[in-house]
Amino acid sequence: MAQLVTGNMAVKGTKFLWKCLPVHVEKADRSQLRVKWKTEEGKTCDDVFDTVLFAVGRQAQTSRLNLDKVGVKTHPDSHKVLATNEQSSVSHIYAIGDVLQGKPELTPVAIKAGKLLARRLFENSKKQMDYENVATTVFTPLEYASVGLSEEKAVEKHGIQNLEIYHAFYKPLQYTLAERDASQCYLKAVCLREHPQKVIGLHMTGPHAGEVMQGFSAALKCGLNIELLEQTVGIHPTVAEEVVKLNISKRSGEDPTVTGC
Amino acid sequence: MAQLVTGNMAVKGTKFLWKCLPVHVEKADRSQLRVKWKTEEGKTCDDVFDTVLFAVGRQAQTSRLNLDKVGVKTHPDSHKVLATNEQSSVSHIYAIGDVLQGKPELTPVAIKAGKLLARRLFENSKKQMDYENVATTVFTPLEYASVGLSEEKAVEKHGIQNLEIYHAFYKPLQYTLAERDASQCYLKAVCLREHPQKVIGLHMTGPHAGEVMQGFSAALKCGLNIELLEQTVGIHPTVAEEVVKLNISKRSGEDPTVTGC
Ligand SMILES: Cc1cc2nc3c(=O)[nH]c(=O)nc-3n(C[C@H](O)[C@H](O)[C@H](O)COP(=O)(O)OP(=O)(O)OC[C@H]3O[C@@H](n4cnc5c(N)ncnc54)[C@H](O)[C@@H]3O)c2cc1C
Ligand SMILES: Cc1cc2nc3c(=O)[nH]c(=O)nc-3n(C[C@H](O)[C@H](O)[C@H](O)COP(=O)(O)OP(=O)(O)OC[C@H]3O[C@@H](n4cnc5c(N)ncnc54)[C@H](O)[C@@H]3O)c2cc1C
Repeated sequence: MAQLVTGNMAVKGTKFLWKCLPVHVEKADRSQLRVKWKTEEGKTCDDVFDTVLFAVGRQAQTSRLNLDKVGVKTHPDSHKVLATNEQSSVSHIYAIGDVLQGKPELTPVAIKAGKLLARRLFENSKKQMDYENVATTVFTPLEYASVGLSEEKAVEKHGIQNLEIYHAFYKPLQYTLAERDASQCYLKAVCLREHPQKVIGLHMTGPHAGEVMQGFSAALKCGLNIELLEQTVGIHPTVAEEVVKLNISKRSGEDPTVTGC
Repeated sequence: MAQLVTGNMAVKGTKFLWKCLPVHVEKADRSQLRVKWKTEEGKTCDDVFDTVLFAVGRQAQTSRLNLDKVGVKTHPDSHKVLATNEQSSVSHIYAIGDVLQGKPELTPVAIKAGKLLARRLFENSKKQMDYENVATTVFTPLEYASVGLSEEKAVEKHGIQNLEIYHAFYKPLQYTLAERDASQCYLKAVCLREHPQKVIGLHMTGPHAGEVMQGFSAALKCGLNIELLEQTVGIHPTVAEEVVKLNISKRSGEDPTVTGC
């Protein structure tokens, strides 16, 4: 899925330098920046750029909180709080959101976990936050949205012999009209092989992928399987109808290219 | 829902003449057309227009088929074929698609009914077409998408006392950035009142409503209820996340305007 997104950016003119390690940035002429980097083979290269942006991930700023003084355990590398059901190693100290070790770093996850925790603490609720099947979207020029397990994780967990994976290369109607290349518009449903083939992962690249995925993530919460997906009638013309039209399994070896409108 | 769509068109400059009956169209100057119409009060008015388009619905062209000669029954008004499970009153004559009386006139409905019928006839399948919970979209400037029962039909079928209706006026992020008016962006979930409040109808006006609705229509097929909808974590920022955030019931009388992003 990642390669489809970067492939799409490359087609549109983004030049990727893979497996390069930046080693030096300095001011160059005309408000540009000169960057030096090392390639995988150890060669040093350099060039000038208008903008340098680091996307190196985030680290929790817990060190300044002196959590260890009260006994709140954190992860040695990420410095994030270790917790079960948002409860830290000190029973009256809770943590929600990005600061939690091993949980998705997403705004609605932080909000929902907080709401549920407040209700448990002050409203006698028993409802726990469910971190499984949280849908997410990467808002790249070609959007990528997913919910549930990746194919790799599913294979690891269930074994390839217990999975049926449906996929399709589809062409959005808006691309057809504009005669745009749709080579990177792809759909994949990772299912348990056993009848009725429960859907455990859904992946999509394409226009409005985020808008499309939200409803299907609700369907996964409701136990979506291939039989129910097939019974769902499409909305024509939408991109989303391609999901309910999925019918070619990887195992069949058939061409996953969608024909017709 | 319909008033939101036309309201949105009116705000953008479309002038509606409600409850008027066109009585005469003739060529005017400069390739325009002069139209005469009668108002509800019986007054006759006229004006010139660039284009005249009739959207008066469709009628089945079955009369020329002499269906009555073989005993295939049709509806006296619509001339459409009367059938159960696509089987007409003559057991070896089947009908699918728009020509069926009382079924949704939609491309994917015709396709799916045809596929399922072929499998029943030639592949020993038992699967019937399910015409319930077929999602559909009206591709007006402000899209309207829905699945399941309208509020009116639900009240008729279940009684208002047995329903809980959740709704929201929301502001799509793309409207916020562009400072566009979002007064007509609205969401409504029609649910049974009894726990866990099964969703029996979902309605939405807004950008990409069709893309959003498809996945939720799959969720309805899987038995979506308010508890499962609430457990579904949103994808931020999307329009679709407003569906899983629905929490104000009409009965509560609370302000359904979504605040915050
Ligand atoms: C560039 C970027 C893009 C993103 N895009 C998306 C997206 O599209 N969708 C999405 O769902 N998520 C997105 N995220 C993730 C999202 O922002 C986070 O998951 C979310 O903000 C987590 O909420 P939080 O309350 O846990 O942490 P934060 O929002 O980081 O809030 C923590 C707060 O604690 C304060 N703080 C820190 N230390 C102290 C201290 N010692 N005393 C007092 N206050 C302190 C901080 O200043 C901060 O205000 C994005 C993140 C980044 C960085
Ligand atoms: C303007 C418009 C917009 C639409 N937009 C959408 C949309 O966005 N999404 C959607 O899902 N649906 C849409 N529809 C509905 C969709 O087109 C129909 O539901 C669909 O085409 C029905 O398929 P069908 O095979 O039943 O009928 P049709 O597609 O009408 O096919 C019937 C065929 O039978 C032929 N025929 C008729 N009589 C005879 C005869 N005596 N002998 C031989 N052939 C005959 C006709 O010429 C025709 O080709 C739209 C319809 C219209 C009119």
